[in-house]
Amino acid sequence: MKTMERKILKEGKVLPGGILKVGSFLNQQIDTDFLVEMADEVEWLYGDERITKILTIETSGIALAVASGMALGVPVTFAKKHRTSNVDGEAYTTVVHSFTHGEDYNVIVSKDYLGPKDKVLIIDDFLASGHALRGLIDLCNQAGAKIVGVVVAIEKCFQGGGDEIRSEGIRVEALAQIESMTDTEIKFRKQESRE
Amino acid sequence: MKTMERKILKEGKVLPGGILKVGSFLNQQIDTDFLVEMADEVEWLYGDERITKILTIETSGIALAVASGMALGVPVTFAKKHRTSNVDGEAYTTVVHSFTHGEDYNVIVSKDYLGPKDKVLIIDDFLASGHALRGLIDLCNQAGAKIVGVVVAIEKCFQGGGDEIRSEGIRVEALAQIESMTDTEIKFRKQESRE
Repeated sequence: MKTMERKILKEGKVLPGGILKVGSFLNQQIDTDFLVEMADEVEWLYGDERITKILTIETSGIALAVASGMALGVPVTFAKKHRTSNVDGEAYTTVVHSFTHGEDYNVIVSKDYLGPKDKVLIIDDFLASGHALRGLIDLCNQAGAKIVGVVVAIEKCFQGGGDEIRSEGIRVEALAQIESMTDTEIKFRKQESRE
Repeated sequence: MKTMERKILKEGKVLPGGILKVGSFLNQQIDTDFLVEMADEVEWLYGDERITKILTIETSGIALAVASGMALGVPVTFAKKHRTSNVDGEAYTTVVHSFTHGEDYNVIVSKDYLGPKDKVLIIDDFLASGHALRGLIDLCNQAGAKIVGVVVAIEKCFQGGGDEIRSEGIRVEALAQIESMTDTEIKFRKQESRE
């Protein structure tokens, strides 16, 4: 998605430790006009796939997941990062390692909201080593739900998680794919053009 | 908002400890068709107020905030619950007590995304004792931003936070207002009808 690449080049900032800061439009603040464009791209990618549900993980995947759910006309289910007092009943649960925070956490989703009849599109903001995504895939597998595919806003290809999951036969789309990244230069993987 | 009241009566569940579970459409899963209706109501309430920015607090306020930002055509800024490694630079910070989790946490927002030129609409999912809301109001005051008003999806009037903040001269709107709540009955405060 060319507009995403331009947005990253214009507003993104590479921080120490291989972190790409896109706070101005994705992490700390959402540019809602641009969000509509992103959701439109998701609809273009998966609109014919009869998705029944979007699954995302709190927190920063929620905005793209919700806008995409509005575009596709399907509900959005949140996998939560710890058991809170307003999740009752039975839940699927898995463990995810956070690249940003350097620790493990539990991810759960209620059995009420994910099941064997679902055709699921998984959405998140970033795909790096793929740990969060593997957690969401595991939750879908536990539920017996069909994984139609994955969309992330930004893939850091050089961390390998995306290609590893693709090699297992899962469709993984990224609105922008970063091939390499330094303080002074960001290089993108060439994508099929929509036009 | 009558459709919200009906949705609460139909799908809501009162849990021990005065917690209203609305997981099926607001907390754990988002009904995106209904979300569009909610955002339309927010646009009806605040569409003439020249809002420049929506401020919300992660996690469960994000969906309504994002949909409302799309409806009003303004960006959405997230106040975050702890300092993470991808927030750099200067930030406003405040402390909030969580009713659900029974503990205090830091709430921060980067100075890059909230400032004295902003006319802010604050959005959250629940308003009970008003602690989270007071934190967001404090962040706006620190930034010198003008608070145009507040929208919450559901107000638990019997916990008093909303009326207390109204008495200080801040406009607080709730899409549904629960006057009282038991295992067997939910009573709503009468609202001005839109029709």
